[in-house]
Amino acid sequence: MESIRWVLASAGVEFDEEFLETKEQLQKLQDGNHLLFQQVPMVEIDGMKLVQTRSILHYIADKHHLFGRDLKERTLIDMYVEGMLDLLELVIMHPFLKPDDQQKAVVNMAQKAIIRYFPVFEKVLRDHGQRFLVGNLLSLVDIILLQTILALEEKIPNILSAFPHLQEFTVKISNIPTIKKFLEPGKKKKPPLDDIYVRTVYNIFMP
Amino acid sequence: MESIRWVLASAGVEFDEEFLETKEQLQKLQDGNHLLFQQVPMVEIDGMKLVQTRSILHYIADKHHLFGRDLKERTLIDMYVEGMLDLLELVIMHPFLKPDDQQKAVVNMAQKAIIRYFPVFEKVLRDHGQRFLVGNLLSLVDIILLQTILALEEKIPNILSAFPHLQEFTVKISNIPTIKKFLEPGKKKKPPLDDIYVRTVYNIFMP
Repeated sequence: MESIRWVLASAGVEFDEEFLETKEQLQKLQDGNHLLFQQVPMVEIDGMKLVQTRSILHYIADKHHLFGRDLKERTLIDMYVEGMLDLLELVIMHPFLKPDDQQKAVVNMAQKAIIRYFPVFEKVLRDHGQRFLVGNLLSLVDIILLQTILALEEKIPNILSAFPHLQEFTVKISNIPTIKKFLEPGKKKKPPLDDIYVRTVYNIFMP
Repeated sequence: MESIRWVLASAGVEFDEEFLETKEQLQKLQDGNHLLFQQVPMVEIDGMKLVQTRSILHYIADKHHLFGRDLKERTLIDMYVEGMLDLLELVIMHPFLKPDDQQKAVVNMAQKAIIRYFPVFEKVLRDHGQRFLVGNLLSLVDIILLQTILALEEKIPNILSAFPHLQEFTVKISNIPTIKKFLEPGKKKKPPLDDIYVRTVYNIFMP
């Protein structure tokens, strides 16, 4: 859900949030047929009840012109975002791992970031010299890449040390007014997941 | 990759396939910068080297008018497809599980199909009485749903017994000429994964 908050906030959309705290709340949503596949997150928007994180991201990106100007740009954005979501999933799942596996998982996500993903984006930015990754316009991928970088830096502070263009990108995108506001303490960006969050998730979703 | 074969074939696109059989073949693709994130599948099409299964599916669906007529239809298709891909992943990963876990996994995928996913599509078809799931036109979701149904039926032959509209859907979509051709023995649809396939995958991708 955090990616959806990022994209809504970047697009300047105001939104309310409802958090699940008990199994009964989830059950009530399911029983009321509010969840197409009985899963959260769900976003009520424009008379629809959207589910599936990727589909929600795509809808908001389409609506707010964050998906490129033609099919070629769209496809690049889509591929880049899919790569970032793969990496981001490692960060998101980390607090749910057994303590013994957590350190290994940090090494794995650092390697994936440094060897597989960040070099691609560093090269794109270096080669075209523009501010945004695709088409010189803010798109879904800039937002998700910034989210991923900041989430990784919470665990691995120097993760960008070999990527000067990504460092510059991080500063520039963080200073876009809607994003700057989202990043201020106490706003809707969520802090790293803590033990209470992990316990709540287990309580709600475990049979 | 099998979903991509399904969509290409349904759209009537001829394509050649190259299969990895050794670690060295993968290494060569990686070294030659043919794989954006060092992963397969990769599809060369229209001068691009597309990666990430979802992005490839989206590109082909966009190009061949399999993504609805407006943003609302597109979003429905996207959500339905995401649900199907979640279910299909259980089928795809099944041969890679330890033998002891495989039977439990079949029960799990049957439950997910029968309780979570199929009732949604059964209801859509029953309520609107049309041939296709969205907008009365063939779309990405019809293709991926049929793929998922047939893949599940290979493991659980009576999986559709409580879903008469999905049974009818299966027959109708299977008889679309491009799809009918794809389903003929010896064509490009792949049979269920066997032990040799599983071993080859391990040999190529395990460190």
